[in-house]
Amino acid sequence: MVIVLSPSATEVNINAVVSKVTGVGGQAFVSRGERRTIIGLVGDLDLFEDLNLLAFDGVQRVVRISTPFKLVSRDHHPEKSTVMVGTSRAPIGPRTFTLIAGPCAVETPEQTLAAAQMAKAAGASLLRGGAYKPRSSPYAFQGLGEAGLRILADVRAETGLPIVTEVVDVADVDVVASYADMLQVGTRNAQNFALLQAVGAAGKPVMLKRGMSSTIEEWLMAAEYIAQRGNLEIVLCERGIRTFEKATRNTLDISAVPVVHSLSHLPVVVDPSHSGGRRDLVVPLSRAAIAIGADGIIVDVHPDPATALCDGPQALMAEDLAELTSSIKALAPIAGRTLTAPPA
Amino acid sequence: MVIVLSPSATEVNINAVVSKVTGVGGQAFVSRGERRTIIGLVGDLDLFEDLNLLAFDGVQRVVRISTPFKLVSRDHHPEKSTVMVGTSRAPIGPRTFTLIAGPCAVETPEQTLAAAQMAKAAGASLLRGGAYKPRSSPYAFQGLGEAGLRILADVRAETGLPIVTEVVDVADVDVVASYADMLQVGTRNAQNFALLQAVGAAGKPVMLKRGMSSTIEEWLMAAEYIAQRGNLEIVLCERGIRTFEKATRNTLDISAVPVVHSLSHLPVVVDPSHSGGRRDLVVPLSRAAIAIGADGIIVDVHPDPATALCDGPQALMAEDLAELTSSIKALAPIAGRTLTAPPA
Amino acid sequence: MVIVLSPSATEVNINAVVSKVTGVGGQAFVSRGERRTIIGLVGDLDLFEDLNLLAFDGVQRVVRISTPFKLVSRDHHPEKSTVMVGTSRAPIGPRTFTLIAGPCAVETPEQTLAAAQMAKAAGASLLRGGAYKPRSSPYAFQGLGEAGLRILADVRAETGLPIVTEVVDVADVDVVASYADMLQVGTRNAQNFALLQAVGAAGKPVMLKRGMSSTIEEWLMAAEYIAQRGNLEIVLCERGIRTFEKATRNTLDISAVPVVHSLSHLPVVVDPSHSGGRRDLVVPLSRAAIAIGADGIIVDVHPDPATALCDGPQALMAEDLAELTSSIKALAPIAGRTLTAPPA
Amino acid sequence: MVIVLSPSATEVNINAVVSKVTGVGGQAFVSRGERRTIIGLVGDLDLFEDLNLLAFDGVQRVVRISTPFKLVSRDHHPEKSTVMVGTSRAPIGPRTFTLIAGPCAVETPEQTLAAAQMAKAAGASLLRGGAYKPRSSPYAFQGLGEAGLRILADVRAETGLPIVTEVVDVADVDVVASYADMLQVGTRNAQNFALLQAVGAAGKPVMLKRGMSSTIEEWLMAAEYIAQRGNLEIVLCERGIRTFEKATRNTLDISAVPVVHSLSHLPVVVDPSHSGGRRDLVVPLSRAAIAIGADGIIVDVHPDPATALCDGPQALMAEDLAELTSSIKALAPIAGRTLTAPPA
Repeated sequence: MVIVLSPSATEVNINAVVSKVTGVGGQAFVSRGERRTIIGLVGDLDLFEDLNLLAFDGVQRVVRISTPFKLVSRDHHPEKSTVMVGTSRAPIGPRTFTLIAGPCAVETPEQTLAAAQMAKAAGASLLRGGAYKPRSSPYAFQGLGEAGLRILADVRAETGLPIVTEVVDVADVDVVASYADMLQVGTRNAQNFALLQAVGAAGKPVMLKRGMSSTIEEWLMAAEYIAQRGNLEIVLCERGIRTFEKATRNTLDISAVPVVHSLSHLPVVVDPSHSGGRRDLVVPLSRAAIAIGADGIIVDVHPDPATALCDGPQALMAEDLAELTSSIKALAPIAGRTLTAPPA
Repeated sequence: MVIVLSPSATEVNINAVVSKVTGVGGQAFVSRGERRTIIGLVGDLDLFEDLNLLAFDGVQRVVRISTPFKLVSRDHHPEKSTVMVGTSRAPIGPRTFTLIAGPCAVETPEQTLAAAQMAKAAGASLLRGGAYKPRSSPYAFQGLGEAGLRILADVRAETGLPIVTEVVDVADVDVVASYADMLQVGTRNAQNFALLQAVGAAGKPVMLKRGMSSTIEEWLMAAEYIAQRGNLEIVLCERGIRTFEKATRNTLDISAVPVVHSLSHLPVVVDPSHSGGRRDLVVPLSRAAIAIGADGIIVDVHPDPATALCDGPQALMAEDLAELTSSIKALAPIAGRTLTAPPA
Repeated sequence: MVIVLSPSATEVNINAVVSKVTGVGGQAFVSRGERRTIIGLVGDLDLFEDLNLLAFDGVQRVVRISTPFKLVSRDHHPEKSTVMVGTSRAPIGPRTFTLIAGPCAVETPEQTLAAAQMAKAAGASLLRGGAYKPRSSPYAFQGLGEAGLRILADVRAETGLPIVTEVVDVADVDVVASYADMLQVGTRNAQNFALLQAVGAAGKPVMLKRGMSSTIEEWLMAAEYIAQRGNLEIVLCERGIRTFEKATRNTLDISAVPVVHSLSHLPVVVDPSHSGGRRDLVVPLSRAAIAIGADGIIVDVHPDPATALCDGPQALMAEDLAELTSSIKALAPIAGRTLTAPPA
Repeated sequence: MVIVLSPSATEVNINAVVSKVTGVGGQAFVSRGERRTIIGLVGDLDLFEDLNLLAFDGVQRVVRISTPFKLVSRDHHPEKSTVMVGTSRAPIGPRTFTLIAGPCAVETPEQTLAAAQMAKAAGASLLRGGAYKPRSSPYAFQGLGEAGLRILADVRAETGLPIVTEVVDVADVDVVASYADMLQVGTRNAQNFALLQAVGAAGKPVMLKRGMSSTIEEWLMAAEYIAQRGNLEIVLCERGIRTFEKATRNTLDISAVPVVHSLSHLPVVVDPSHSGGRRDLVVPLSRAAIAIGADGIIVDVHPDPATALCDGPQALMAEDLAELTSSIKALAPIAGRTLTAPPA
């Protein structure tokens, strides 16, 4: 941590900072410049943050040097992690490419099964599907709740595909965890810390979507909340950030994949469906995700998008899936990865 | 709602849209242009949204014309609302200017009482103070919890100031509501719909902060979630949005005040402390808020910012409060408002 | 400047940085931490920037501490500047509030004169009006060019109001400067450095609009380009930045007024017309601008907005101007300012 | 174009709009809803825009349906274009993948030749290099000017590589065009319309970078300015947009590649160097660009980044180029493209 003093800071101001820092066991190195003085701190970052040095007289800026996350940091865990999901132990990690697919929302047993079969035929090894849907409007379809989870469980029994499904309320974590193989935390809950802690304690792998306006650092701090509860089975999901561009629903931050891989040992997947919000962009964005080194993708599919109760315009249909599959087959090997096989 | 067809749309495509719309009881007016056709829909917007017309063949764009919120809309409730808080019935509404002040976080009984006395002396009629703190880092101070609520209740007994305090978890709503006079939902929970519904059912007025990347429409939809549970005692709080500018913590969207007033009957207050994140900006931003017609402001104060456990660098001290008070006294009358008086 | 080394940096890496810095006459203070080392540099910032230290082995981050602008910095010129415009010497500075008003575009002599008379009656001491218009579409009205300048000069002769008008091309600087009293550089040219240098050399005061995605630091650097050519008669104009919010054309960054005043001695005015893009927001935003301490505002007026060739929807009409004038009269004294008087 | 009336609009208001539209030869279809009326306009968009209908009484919103660009639109030119550069006729278009590489800035003959040889060895068929540099700071290195152009011409003579170089001032267009094979317009000049028109008239192909806060529509409108001068030899370059994320210099909007391809017939290349601003991201971002279907990339290379006068931290070195080349060789065929061969 570096403390930058204002040009008008006095010796008294400098000494006050130095004493405070040494008082908690830190070291302070003072560099006196022509126009201003800076103080470099050595020691425990958490201790220093509690000192609130920015509020001291004469202090102009406090520059944090280290990253604030620990358990999810690659500094402390240089080897990349692999997260295994479900009884089929579908891996998400550095040597595989994992396709996660399914309907945005579970609507009926028939629609969910049809979508799951489409997904599996296309090479998916995990089934996504929402039973609890966070919707901007209270008048929009909110999901089937536990009835939806039962449908997912039936479809899992039929297809063998482990289930990834969202949980939006701490009160639902137990029931969702009793059905799901992987818990998803959505973009709107990216800083719902109570929910992060609850899924951290639920004993299931977690897919953590990036908040639509989260910096990468904040996203990793959200993962740290989960990790702190003893759960390091976390997969990060880049799903687009909010910008001024209107041609797409969000702006897929494709750079986030290598940036996260450089900072954290956790796997990263990309959601090309929600980032673009347009069916015609899903395959192109998926291709970019594979080539840049994502550990997988998560896509919306629907047997009949025109009747979908949620996000139909971005759902892939059968012909799109064929194109997606052939893209994965061509590109994944070049990225040094093998497609995670669907369950038998 | 207007349906824009692509240049290549056929008569079959047009008829499919028209039949679908008339099938749910709507009317469809077709305008055939030189290059493309548009269809104007008349009827119930919610019905039309469920039709998922964007997924129909030949449909290029669906343009929503009406606002999607109802209970909080000014269309349905032209008169501006006043929200009354606490047993002192402190009003937040169109004829008053209400100062809400207090420590960012409750730390000790002494610090909270001292801050409350500073606030009251400066003209505050409501006390803010956090017992449950949402923090980006799990290693940061998270608040005292119920012990903090008890301190707030004691300080209320001493000063008469009703309490505004944040709730971050559905599980805590009952206990927070049992102490608080007004429940605050913070920026990170702006789309935590389970929490919005829970505070909507808690029987206390709510202060709803804007999400750091929420559009004004999304913010009003979040308020609609609360209103749907039968609670229209909602005050909106503009606290800055996320942009590329680095000189301030967030960018205060001052235009949001008149925009919200034109769209909704709910009161709007401004948080100059969290938007700028700098003590030197609090009074200037407060002046702008009063002059533009905000119904109040909510500011951080601290008897000794250098020891604050949270957001010390933006807390006002005694001398700043004197300047704030004199600004309010000078500007509120010009904005056609009287300062809400502190309790006796 | 602070050099942050990566945890894996070696003594050789550290010495390479230190030698490079001392080689150009600087001083380097090394602070060795538990996990990483930082080096504080003391000396000439420009020299250090040329060293490209970020490309050195072992260097992870270079943190600039000082501001990069000089001539426009308040550090070097603590007293706030006043810029005088035209033969009437209309001041823009710390003790006055200056209303600049006129049509977005000069269309006809009649429309320009009518707008100027409306502006003067409302208290404007300077006339704005565009003869050269930068438009996103090449098919939109681009302005009358020199014919427009002649109209402005005639209206100045009639009303006494000095003229503020935009120049969009280096090739036009001389002709525009031969008519105008103040040259305006628009948001799209905020980093058109050739144009900035040309207006810097033109011998007339300059109004420099903020780029729609410029940080405050970049904006001040653009001003530095003008100042470097010997022209410190610069007025900065905040006109809204680009964000995700759609209710307004841009988001007025009202905090920029006090932030710029803390960093620079130059005056700052606000453009409430182009930031909101809506007539109903112009007066409210103007009120916020006055209260927060802006040195003036620049607004669009039009005798008949429905026929305006440019930005009609945001132009004020006679009744709006009356409201604006009364707001200025009430608020400017509270901000410690007197309204700059129109020419006799 | 669709005109949305406010709920309070009267028959007189509706008729005023209809007469105005029919008066210029358009057709107006009125759809009367329960709560509001909409009017669909059929005819010439440019005519309608000049009517300024948003300023009419009772008009609440004007929704443009068609795209505002014409010459660069794919609607009017369904076949994708190929732009040929230099006497070697290096193609940039739908069947090839073109590598453009070279130093950010031309510094010395030796550095430029070394960088060009590195580029050519890596498979580049075009040489980039700046002689005129737009820099945020007037104190930063601004380029060698015409001396730099002469160096580029010498290096072209030596290597056979056609030259892509930036022009920042209308006054320099002739001299730059006399040396260059392709003129580049940079992000800061994305809406410098005078410069766009001048390069449109210069008789050389143009590389048009996206403005750092331009929407895709604005970017295509900027291309329309060039096209209007009779020059359709335009290549668009996505180079990242400005967002709140701080881990990268800009956020590469990878979705822009397929979005532009769907809207325009012009080729699109990606600049992975300036979007990320970090050497370690250049190869990963290049891989994404190839896989998503970009028509080429433009990258910074430098024989010795530590001494670079501009953007050294993002320049590729020899070992990075080898990795880039092998990525292109593996991925371009999968994207259905062949690498444009360097000149003999």
